[in-house]
Amino acid sequence: MKNYPIGIFDSGVGGLTVVKQMFKRLPNEEIVYLGDTARVPYGTKSPETIKRFAVENANFLMKFKVKLIVVACNTASSTSLDILREKFNIPIVGVIKPGAEKAVQITRNNKVGIIGTYTTVKSKAYEKEIRRFSRDVEVASKACPLFVPLVEEGWLKEDVTFDIVKKYLKPLMSKKIDTLILGCTHYPLLKSVISKVAGREVKIVDSASSVADEVCNILMALGKLSEQKKPSHKFFATDAVEHFVRIGEKFLGTKIHRAERADYV
Amino acid sequence: MKNYPIGIFDSGVGGLTVVKQMFKRLPNEEIVYLGDTARVPYGTKSPETIKRFAVENANFLMKFKVKLIVVACNTASSTSLDILREKFNIPIVGVIKPGAEKAVQITRNNKVGIIGTYTTVKSKAYEKEIRRFSRDVEVASKACPLFVPLVEEGWLKEDVTFDIVKKYLKPLMSKKIDTLILGCTHYPLLKSVISKVAGREVKIVDSASSVADEVCNILMALGKLSEQKKPSHKFFATDAVEHFVRIGEKFLGTKIHRAERADYV
Repeated sequence: MKNYPIGIFDSGVGGLTVVKQMFKRLPNEEIVYLGDTARVPYGTKSPETIKRFAVENANFLMKFKVKLIVVACNTASSTSLDILREKFNIPIVGVIKPGAEKAVQITRNNKVGIIGTYTTVKSKAYEKEIRRFSRDVEVASKACPLFVPLVEEGWLKEDVTFDIVKKYLKPLMSKKIDTLILGCTHYPLLKSVISKVAGREVKIVDSASSVADEVCNILMALGKLSEQKKPSHKFFATDAVEHFVRIGEKFLGTKIHRAERADYV
Repeated sequence: MKNYPIGIFDSGVGGLTVVKQMFKRLPNEEIVYLGDTARVPYGTKSPETIKRFAVENANFLMKFKVKLIVVACNTASSTSLDILREKFNIPIVGVIKPGAEKAVQITRNNKVGIIGTYTTVKSKAYEKEIRRFSRDVEVASKACPLFVPLVEEGWLKEDVTFDIVKKYLKPLMSKKIDTLILGCTHYPLLKSVISKVAGREVKIVDSASSVADEVCNILMALGKLSEQKKPSHKFFATDAVEHFVRIGEKFLGTKIHRAERADYV
């Protein structure tokens, strides 16, 4: 059971930024990654629909006897952890709590900003987690629905990208935040523009590395850290895999040698 | 059978621009509209996946004994008409041919531009239809994947919208096109910015009204025009309907009194 894989799912390729951190932090673990590219994005869809998709995705991963599931999508994490924990008898780890925790630790003026999709922002999931760690932190949030298509278009440093980032961040900057949570797995690819607009004094929190730490802590506590020397990983997508592999490698930072279509969608 | 409804599906709300024209042109026809909002957008997904979705959507509409199906989505029209015609024994009308035909009729310098989603542009469906009407027309096309999210964000007249339109249209304008096909049902909402960037001498072709004409011609030829005085319409969406109704009314231009969730997704 120790050497069973870890399952990770996301609405698309964004969750591969989490896989990248898992490879670094937990090099002995075997990963089964599923990107629901046929139904991406989740961020503009209703919580009910996202819950249904999340359960289907987790069902697919369970076939690989995964010992833990990471929900590497902020929108799914903000809506579906409860139903997944109800239905599946293994640890379910989302990306919201680790990011919230880190932001509370590093803010100095107790003013934290959050950017994410419509559904994530509307869910107030980050606010709720931040409240659990501290009652003193003020939170300001802003949905940035154009960031995902900008990243997928590859416009990471264009002038229009800078203008759009400026437009979205304006209300947060006027609240004098000193910490900004990137509440969507696509956003780390816009980090340099976001930093430039937000200014050097604003610290950027990207959940991916905090999630890998949390998974490590949980598996250690359960005595389930893998002892495999050369784990082999599996990548699945619900849409055709060519596009998934091409774009996914940008997020993962290394080659994806093989991906298969998950055909339950 | 005359008074049976017309089925129309789209990946989301965009196809309501076609419904709007149908209401004008064919006021006696009953419409059953289906927006696949749980899986929107189609434009970045593979032809295989879109075909699968198109067949599922048509199957849903067939339950209402529709006498004709309009595929009011350019991406689905560019990939799925053949498979739909194979599987269903009623007329299937797409949005590509009527738009292509109209562009060929109105161009004076025989240089036509096409803008649409990645999958529509890659399919070369407009080029193929234009070729069937004329061998002399030169075609230039450009995928504009940020237009749909811009429309859904409601940024119809912002400065960044103007800059993005300019960036996308540049290669088409340098080819001296005098006619531009809006090859996506979302784009009519950006028509004023597109016109401004393209200049007064460029004529804009929006397929929606040509499609309504084509449906009218087909039903007339088949002797199947409805004789209902007050047809009642049905609206369905695969995601939660509140958002569908709110956004959809902008596309339709009138109120949607009631919409239901189609639960096969």
